[in-house]
Amino acid sequence: MEKPYVIGIDIGGTNTVFGVVDARGTILYSGSIKTGQYEDINDYVSALSEGLQSVIKQAGGNDQIKGIGVGAPNGNYFNGCIEFAPNLPWKGKIPLAQMISDSVGGIPVTLTNDANAAAIGEMTYGAARGLKDFIVITLGTGVGSGIVIGGNLVYGHDGFAGELGHTIIRRDHGRLCGCGRHGCLEAYTSATGVARTARELLVNRTDESLLRELPPEEITSKDVFDAAMKGDKLSAEIFELTGAMLGEAFADFVAFSSPEAIILFGGLTKAGDMIMEPIKKSMEKNVLKVFEGKTKLLFSQLKESDAAVLGASALGWEVKE
Amino acid sequence: MEKPYVIGIDIGGTNTVFGVVDARGTILYSGSIKTGQYEDINDYVSALSEGLQSVIKQAGGNDQIKGIGVGAPNGNYFNGCIEFAPNLPWKGKIPLAQMISDSVGGIPVTLTNDANAAAIGEMTYGAARGLKDFIVITLGTGVGSGIVIGGNLVYGHDGFAGELGHTIIRRDHGRLCGCGRHGCLEAYTSATGVARTARELLVNRTDESLLRELPPEEITSKDVFDAAMKGDKLSAEIFELTGAMLGEAFADFVAFSSPEAIILFGGLTKAGDMIMEPIKKSMEKNVLKVFEGKTKLLFSQLKESDAAVLGASALGWEVKE
Repeated sequence: MEKPYVIGIDIGGTNTVFGVVDARGTILYSGSIKTGQYEDINDYVSALSEGLQSVIKQAGGNDQIKGIGVGAPNGNYFNGCIEFAPNLPWKGKIPLAQMISDSVGGIPVTLTNDANAAAIGEMTYGAARGLKDFIVITLGTGVGSGIVIGGNLVYGHDGFAGELGHTIIRRDHGRLCGCGRHGCLEAYTSATGVARTARELLVNRTDESLLRELPPEEITSKDVFDAAMKGDKLSAEIFELTGAMLGEAFADFVAFSSPEAIILFGGLTKAGDMIMEPIKKSMEKNVLKVFEGKTKLLFSQLKESDAAVLGASALGWEVKE
Repeated sequence: MEKPYVIGIDIGGTNTVFGVVDARGTILYSGSIKTGQYEDINDYVSALSEGLQSVIKQAGGNDQIKGIGVGAPNGNYFNGCIEFAPNLPWKGKIPLAQMISDSVGGIPVTLTNDANAAAIGEMTYGAARGLKDFIVITLGTGVGSGIVIGGNLVYGHDGFAGELGHTIIRRDHGRLCGCGRHGCLEAYTSATGVARTARELLVNRTDESLLRELPPEEITSKDVFDAAMKGDKLSAEIFELTGAMLGEAFADFVAFSSPEAIILFGGLTKAGDMIMEPIKKSMEKNVLKVFEGKTKLLFSQLKESDAAVLGASALGWEVKE
C-alpha cells in the first residue's frame, strides 16, 4: 500500500519547522526547534530527531511516512549535503540528509535549497499545479529561485542551479551583496534590499515621508509597506522602483526559459498589487517582442505560515519505493 | 530496420543548404538554393523540394531517410512554423515543416531555430557528446543560444526559449539592438557588434590603429581580427572588451542553469584564444562563488562549413517511428 504521508522540514537560520503532510497538502502534525541553539551539528540532529519521532508517532509510525523532504539554504539535491551556508551555525559540508535519515530509522530523506522546495511545493499543492514550465521567485531576507522546465526542477550539473537572486541587475556602481559581489538582484529586491532603498532615498532626497519618523537603521520592508498603505508617497515609490527592477530581471529570465508563469513567494509578496503591478508593467515593457503578454505573474497559493514546510514535504513524494 | 540517414536543412537569409547525413555525422550528399530569390513561399518550397528529392535519390530513396531536421531563424519546434522572421522574405506565420514534409512524400520534418539546432548538433556529433547540461552560444551576425538541461533542449512553454542574445548586458545608454530594444548582448558581441565597437573606439579615441586605414562603415569583425593578428593593439582590445562582456553575461547564465559547459559556435570563434581568454577571465571573475572554476568553456567541434546542416540534421534522429 502507498504510504499516506510525507514530512517536510524547513531549516531557517532561526527556526527549524517540520510537519507531517498528507497528499492534499494538509499539515497534520508539526513541531519546531531553534536552529541557532545548536553549535554542534550532532546536537542539532539529535534534537530534530526527537521532534520528528514525536510527530511520526502521532502519524502512526515510520510505516506511514513515504519520505522526508528538507529545504535548507545551500542544500544540494545531488549529495544531500548543506554546503557552506552562511546563515547556519555549522561550517563546511554537512551530509545532513544522511544524518537525518539515520536518526529516524532509515526513512529516505531528500534535501534541496529552500527556493527549490518552494517550487516543488507550488507544483504539488499550489499555484503551479499542472504547469510544466515556471519559475518561483522567493522574495524574503534574500532573493531565491526555483526553476522548473518540462516538469523537472533545474538542478544544474552540480545541484546549485537557480541562483537568480545573484544575477546582476546593476553593473555600474551596484550595491554590495551578501555574496561579496556587486549589483545582484537580491541586493535591491529582497526585504533587506527594500529597506536599503528606503534609507538611500531618505538620505538623497528631501521630500516628506512617514519613514522619517523612524531611526533609519531600523527601517524594515514592513515599515515601508505600512507607510505606503497609509498613503506615503515615497514608500509607494520604493515599491515601484523595486517592482520595476524585478520586471527588468524577469524579462531576461523569460528570454532564457520562456516560462508559462513566474510565481512570487515570500514576505515581500504581502505588498500585493503594490509590488505586482510595477513588476508586470516593467516586465512587459522590457521583454523581447516574441514573449509579450505570454508570461503570467502569479502569487504563491501556499499559506504563508505553512509554505516552507509544504514545499519541503513535496520532495518526500519523489521517493521511489 | 532502422533507417540509416537523416537530412539537415539550414535556412539562412541568403542560402538554404541541405544534406543527407549518416549516424556518425558525415554529410554524404548535399545541395543548396538561394533563399532570397523566392518571394513566394510556395516557389521556395518547390525549389527546395526539387533539391531534396535529388539528394534523397542519391541516398537510395525515401525509405533510407529517418527524418528531416530544419534549422531556421524564428523556427518554432512546437508547431513547425517560422514566425515573423525578420531576415527571411516571407511574412507572418509559415507552416514550413508541414509544407516540406508534404513536398517530399511525407518524410517527418522537425523544425527549430538555428541556435537550438546547433545545440542538438553538438550533443549528437560534437563537443557536447555525453553532456546533459550545457549551453551553446552562437556568435555570428546575431547572438543566439541553445540551452540543454538534463539532456533535453529547453523550448519553453511557447517554443521560443533560449534567446540569450537578447538578455540585457548594458541597462544604461545601451546600444540599439535589431530587436528594437537597447543594451542586448547581441548588440555588442555579435560579429556586427564587434564592428560597431571598432567604429565607436575609432571615433572616441585618437590612438593609432590599422583599422584607421579602412572606411569606418565598411569595417567588419574579420577586419578587426586580421588587424589584431598583425599586432594592432586597438583591435586586440576590441576582442578583450567583447570577451569581457560575454563573460559577464555567461556568469548570469551559470547562475540560471549551472551548465557543465558553455560551447561557442559561429564566425566570431575564429578569433580563438583572442576571444576565449577574456571570456574565461571575465566569467570566473564575475561568477557567484559556488560556481567558480566549474563551468568549462569550449569551442564547437563541428566543422564550420558543415555545422549548420549537421545541427539541423540531428533533429531528424528524434523522430519516433
